[in-house]
Amino acid sequence: MLQLYYAADTCSLASHIALEEAGADYQLARISFAQNEQRSPQYLAINPKGRVPALVTDRGILTETPAMLVFIAQIFPQAHLAPLDNAFAFAEMQAFNSFLCSTLHVAHAHRMRGSRWADDEAAIESMKRKVPDSVRGCYELIERHMFRGPWAMGEAYTVSDPYLFTIAQWMEGDGVDPMSFPRVADHRRRMSERPAVRKALAAEAA
Amino acid sequence: MLQLYYAADTCSLASHIALEEAGADYQLARISFAQNEQRSPQYLAINPKGRVPALVTDRGILTETPAMLVFIAQIFPQAHLAPLDNAFAFAEMQAFNSFLCSTLHVAHAHRMRGSRWADDEAAIESMKRKVPDSVRGCYELIERHMFRGPWAMGEAYTVSDPYLFTIAQWMEGDGVDPMSFPRVADHRRRMSERPAVRKALAAEAA
Repeated sequence: MLQLYYAADTCSLASHIALEEAGADYQLARISFAQNEQRSPQYLAINPKGRVPALVTDRGILTETPAMLVFIAQIFPQAHLAPLDNAFAFAEMQAFNSFLCSTLHVAHAHRMRGSRWADDEAAIESMKRKVPDSVRGCYELIERHMFRGPWAMGEAYTVSDPYLFTIAQWMEGDGVDPMSFPRVADHRRRMSERPAVRKALAAEAA
Repeated sequence: MLQLYYAADTCSLASHIALEEAGADYQLARISFAQNEQRSPQYLAINPKGRVPALVTDRGILTETPAMLVFIAQIFPQAHLAPLDNAFAFAEMQAFNSFLCSTLHVAHAHRMRGSRWADDEAAIESMKRKVPDSVRGCYELIERHMFRGPWAMGEAYTVSDPYLFTIAQWMEGDGVDPMSFPRVADHRRRMSERPAVRKALAAEAA
């Protein structure tokens, strides 16, 4: 059985929702960032990077949200969570996910994880001050150029949708007004009504 | 015909090498960062993100290195650049690429692109000082946990190899001694001898 290592309020929610959308049989394993469990020897044996998510499978352990999302789509093809038979459409979806992980999530991370990239407190505070601007710039690209509607990649719901929804949960915390981005805000609202999303959020809040 | 928008000394080299490895018929279009061409209206019409690489195809334009690398592997299956028939192995390769784009490349980017994440000069200088540490931490994970040998993902050469090679070109500039990471250094040396790599490097230096 699949086992998802997750932490509340992190990008692991995207894979959690994808597992729900796929109708997967899986178990949850919670990692407490408050207790720094992601750096425990037990967890580092699962993911030496000390990050979430990690997905334990019968073949081995996978990490990195974009890789896990596509894996879930591939092993549950009946859920139609990715355009698996169309290389170009698949690449467009992958590009969307790659932007989320390497640009938008990274911009957001400068609010609470600045110590990854600087040691002194003044620099870390300076990074925090820039987060609203840098995150807003990412949403401008998404709203104007990348988001197709009604779902991220157009007519078909894909794993890009739970990924965008997950990161968009952080907008207010990042100092970005969702009302500035009506298409992203509407997507977030519609996503929050999906049974898979409600179930995943309820499990993480429990 | 495919057209690759690239800039010298950037991650676009990975896609350039992959196109060579695939035996693709493609054209190069150079973007000069020195002349800020990535922010020109002409280029923003191709890639609104103002970054390289971008790949013009007969279906449309693709961006984001991890997406482009897999697309190249998929449309040239005879080149065997990815484990396309094995969802788990494919996900492992994608996880490797995702780590390169969202963690290692991001750590490196704090040396020359700090203005993405802070406005004041002192903070940007502070970020630069941390780059050797943060980049070294990424190579420790690659050397000890992620790199399998002889190629990144093991016996089979994949698109992860040109991607690792491309980023590993920046080690010295990032203040990281390649000799501290003998497996990565050996990979870099073997990669530099491949005809596809030599041809791509020569074209970008021309």
